[in-house]
Amino acid sequence: MPDLALIVTPAARVLPALEEAARLGVSAAIVISSGFAEAGAEGAARQARMAELARASGMIVCGPNSIGVLNYVDRIPMSFTSSEDMDRHPAGRVALVSQSGGLMISLANRFFDAGVGVSYAVATGNEADLTAVDALEYLADDGSSDALAVLVEEVRDGPRFMALCRRLLDIGKPLIAYKLGRTEPGSGTVRSHTGALAGAYQAFRAVCRQLGVLEAVDLDDMIDLAASGAARRWPRGPGIGVVTGSGGGGAAAVDRAAELGLTVPAFGEASLQALRGFLPGFTAGTVENPFDATAQMIEDPTTAGKIVAVLLGDPAIDSVLMIDPGSGERGRLRAVGLLERVRETDKPVFHVVLSGSLARPGYATLRAGGLPVFGSPGKAVEALAGLGRFARARERRAARAANPTLDAELHLRVARALGSAGPRPTEHDAKRFLAELGIPVVADRLARSPEDAARAAQELGFPVALKVHSADIAHKTEAGGVRLDVATADEARHACAEILDNAGRAAPKATLDGVLVSPMIASALELISGFHTDPCFGPMVVLGLGGVWAEALGDVALRPAPLTVEDVADMASELRGAALLRGARGAPKVDMEQLARVLLILSDIALAAGAGLQGIDINPLAVRPSGHVIVVDASLYPAS
Amino acid sequence: MPDLALIVTPAARVLPALEEAARLGVSAAIVISSGFAEAGAEGAARQARMAELARASGMIVCGPNSIGVLNYVDRIPMSFTSSEDMDRHPAGRVALVSQSGGLMISLANRFFDAGVGVSYAVATGNEADLTAVDALEYLADDGSSDALAVLVEEVRDGPRFMALCRRLLDIGKPLIAYKLGRTEPGSGTVRSHTGALAGAYQAFRAVCRQLGVLEAVDLDDMIDLAASGAARRWPRGPGIGVVTGSGGGGAAAVDRAAELGLTVPAFGEASLQALRGFLPGFTAGTVENPFDATAQMIEDPTTAGKIVAVLLGDPAIDSVLMIDPGSGERGRLRAVGLLERVRETDKPVFHVVLSGSLARPGYATLRAGGLPVFGSPGKAVEALAGLGRFARARERRAARAANPTLDAELHLRVARALGSAGPRPTEHDAKRFLAELGIPVVADRLARSPEDAARAAQELGFPVALKVHSADIAHKTEAGGVRLDVATADEARHACAEILDNAGRAAPKATLDGVLVSPMIASALELISGFHTDPCFGPMVVLGLGGVWAEALGDVALRPAPLTVEDVADMASELRGAALLRGARGAPKVDMEQLARVLLILSDIALAAGAGLQGIDINPLAVRPSGHVIVVDASLYPAS
Repeated sequence: MPDLALIVTPAARVLPALEEAARLGVSAAIVISSGFAEAGAEGAARQARMAELARASGMIVCGPNSIGVLNYVDRIPMSFTSSEDMDRHPAGRVALVSQSGGLMISLANRFFDAGVGVSYAVATGNEADLTAVDALEYLADDGSSDALAVLVEEVRDGPRFMALCRRLLDIGKPLIAYKLGRTEPGSGTVRSHTGALAGAYQAFRAVCRQLGVLEAVDLDDMIDLAASGAARRWPRGPGIGVVTGSGGGGAAAVDRAAELGLTVPAFGEASLQALRGFLPGFTAGTVENPFDATAQMIEDPTTAGKIVAVLLGDPAIDSVLMIDPGSGERGRLRAVGLLERVRETDKPVFHVVLSGSLARPGYATLRAGGLPVFGSPGKAVEALAGLGRFARARERRAARAANPTLDAELHLRVARALGSAGPRPTEHDAKRFLAELGIPVVADRLARSPEDAARAAQELGFPVALKVHSADIAHKTEAGGVRLDVATADEARHACAEILDNAGRAAPKATLDGVLVSPMIASALELISGFHTDPCFGPMVVLGLGGVWAEALGDVALRPAPLTVEDVADMASELRGAALLRGARGAPKVDMEQLARVLLILSDIALAAGAGLQGIDINPLAVRPSGHVIVVDASLYPAS
Repeated sequence: MPDLALIVTPAARVLPALEEAARLGVSAAIVISSGFAEAGAEGAARQARMAELARASGMIVCGPNSIGVLNYVDRIPMSFTSSEDMDRHPAGRVALVSQSGGLMISLANRFFDAGVGVSYAVATGNEADLTAVDALEYLADDGSSDALAVLVEEVRDGPRFMALCRRLLDIGKPLIAYKLGRTEPGSGTVRSHTGALAGAYQAFRAVCRQLGVLEAVDLDDMIDLAASGAARRWPRGPGIGVVTGSGGGGAAAVDRAAELGLTVPAFGEASLQALRGFLPGFTAGTVENPFDATAQMIEDPTTAGKIVAVLLGDPAIDSVLMIDPGSGERGRLRAVGLLERVRETDKPVFHVVLSGSLARPGYATLRAGGLPVFGSPGKAVEALAGLGRFARARERRAARAANPTLDAELHLRVARALGSAGPRPTEHDAKRFLAELGIPVVADRLARSPEDAARAAQELGFPVALKVHSADIAHKTEAGGVRLDVATADEARHACAEILDNAGRAAPKATLDGVLVSPMIASALELISGFHTDPCFGPMVVLGLGGVWAEALGDVALRPAPLTVEDVADMASELRGAALLRGARGAPKVDMEQLARVLLILSDIALAAGAGLQGIDINPLAVRPSGHVIVVDASLYPAS
């Protein structure tokens, strides 16, 4: 009985061949042939029948329109393309999964060129049955790889992808992702070539940020990022110790670190003393980080390892970056000395070899020793920043697992609150819903008449805002249904009459419930929040700056529910206007603890409501002079 | 008589050696030795004497602390470091100048590895005499190079650097720059290692943007950017025609193009028809850009060149990007076919070879043919965007040269207006100064008494603003010296009295000239503008969004004077809040023509005033409902 059927016939003959394989009890098939969902309606129908066959028979089908699967561990090529000579290289420790076949084959070649190599490479093609997430799930627990890399056009099952990412955090195996179809035009291109609809990039990126996926901005970055991840060492903090054989190289590293929020901190006293011993007389005053070791490293290649050992022992240093111009045999000796010291620590040690072919001996030694090696200081620092995010996501993951906030009681409360909000909730309903679930909401009264309105305003305290209240009027301002800064009972009476009059004329068929009266909130800073349901990844909690910031800048941060306090801090610092939340320009300094409480409740609501609630808009979420946030206006979107 | 002295003695013996060389009439020296400005006060003094010797003798001195000069054209190594075997490679067409020696040697090695190569490599070290700009000036007119690349820590003579960039635009030879010390911490590092104070990065970047310098964000990017520039073909517009042998590669290119403001436009009808001829039956309906030529390019390598020829003939296409998985002999044949067609056009043709070693034969053929080759679609598109900016800067340069706006009369008018503003100009003086030079300024009256203020307000029309007027009070609001939205004569009278009272108490020693009365300008959008004098590059004209945008976001664009209308458009689109200037969110749509006129006048003022004026702050520059801008408040900073 064959284990695998490799199908390379014209499209029309693929299904009969698969049917026969299934009948024979073959457990898996790879369909190389194209002419399916990527080629019109007839092809799409053929692909649907293929999916049905896989489901019915239990046979795993990879493809169609897949370039194949390459197993470098056992040296089994299952592809039609020219590719690596499998006998020429040992397998690497990075597994590659790709929804683009051509890119995968080329990338695998580059992985081997770089001395990193690949364990398995799986092209999932049109994904009639086997998806990229299926392949990644298998590879997560496979012992042949230390890091996974994926070229992804569309995630078909968001929740499973996120579960996979969480699993990878638990076991400490990083995922590197390059997203095709990040832009509107780019995703159109993706659609045309594999018949997939590209997912919204913003949501994908939010998932990556929360779950520590290392996103490669360029294809070229995947190799170095994957090699960094495969070393499986995580920085405990932002401090990089830099040893450099080129002053310019040190400056390039410090620049990139500063740009990415990492630090190159001062060494501790013990390190300073030890490092002074390596310097020739006339420079002995200038020990600092980066440590410029040009002369010593050239004279005596063994000093490189000794210097790195000093840095690794410094508590201010979370990771070490060695920048080596690299040259011939001396470079190799430096690499050997370095690798010895690296084995004695679990801090990340990254190496930059500035030269190319001149530095081959050292480069090959470092790669063979499993040390992440880069061609430029900037790229090394970018990778360190990525690992730092992965490490933070791991800690957060542990915290989240230990702290389940969702319980049956909450489900019940959300369901009850949703029920009382009704199928077409007004602003009043939305605010009551949020208040019932523990979110601070500005007080309000529903006034049925001008007299009512005057009384309500007096109870609430002046100045007040009046807004028309009707499930039939979505755009209150446009309907003449809003009056702000109303200062007296008399004014409130007149304003109410006017609003009802305006609204009645603007929307003659609307049912007017009355006018909502609420105190004006003095606020120098307005946020927006809420959540929306991403079609792929589910509920995404939103935080942004209100008004012009959200509308003209699109300055909004997303994170998938469930959220942690650290997620909220990340969201806030991701905003371009982040300085405003910290009290810049006389704005009130936002109480981040309270803001986090509010966003975590929104996250819980989203999860507890499930399909019953499509989203919530809070706009504005005002920041009071005390720094506390409070909901001023909100909309609720029940499932339609 | 030796042409050159190469000095490699300990620091203390360098000066005597140089003196002897000068005495002998040697015309140039390279000082490799370190121990000068980078090593404390004694070293700095030695370096000052070296500079003096060079000046007095006329001998050109490169260094000290230079790693040397490598002349690959004539195969003369003038360095102590291990480096390329000069007999092994032909010289390349890119000249390299660096203020960091270590990075230069390593980078040169990578240039040769990539098949691009280097003509000359000059490390200027501490620049006691010969600067990077000196070297670049020489290389600009040298016939051995088609592009220049510079690793720069500090530009010592901004105006000469800008003149060099303009010269490079005139002759069509691009400059690629990597800046060390972009950040505060990074520039500290630079200072420590070559004794140079890093220039402000923001001003440097503004110069690059205006003058078409291709800035490399990472060291790694320099090679591909330089090779692109050395092809000396400039795109006439943003439209890229993409031919791809990998659907995923096409999507990656389209994504990057969309992110960088380039387009991948629809092909013209003639192209569509011609391209259909290359497709097999079942895909004949789907001819689009990117053109997916996977099957054809594999079957018949000669089709690649033919397809590219079709695209090159399409008027919608300004440049062509060929994405080739690349593989062995077929890849080489595709490259040969392509190069033939490229010779028939002057449009830029860029090639992406996705594979590494598997694609060597094609890669080597393309590099030998002078075609820019990339490892990823994203990087190729970035380089095309850079060339597009260079091309736009060239056109602008030609326009600027044909349109000199500065004349003797303006000098006179600026000098006269400056004279009447006096040595400590107030807001009133600053606004009068700007008005005299043709910039629209809000009307105002200087009122000496409450009665005066009421009369002035009535003349100007309500509502008005009142501000204390005193050369001794810089912070008017803090001194209780501002009242806005004053609606009646009576209110104006009271406000004036109050302001004089407040200011008198807040600043008892200040001379109070009175109160400035001006009409309130209703404005939904406030800008800031003006200019400041950068210590290196001279006057930089400023445009930003007012208030919170400038303060919390630092959202400000700079350009060196003289400005063109296109510079102003670039500045506006560089702002994060650019959408607001285009009328987003109900903001008035800014009249860009009038805004450009205002900024061009500011540019002329800055140049005409020269050292007499340090800067002008206009804050706010209000946008009226008509879209016209008007100065509401301004400060003038005469030379101190």
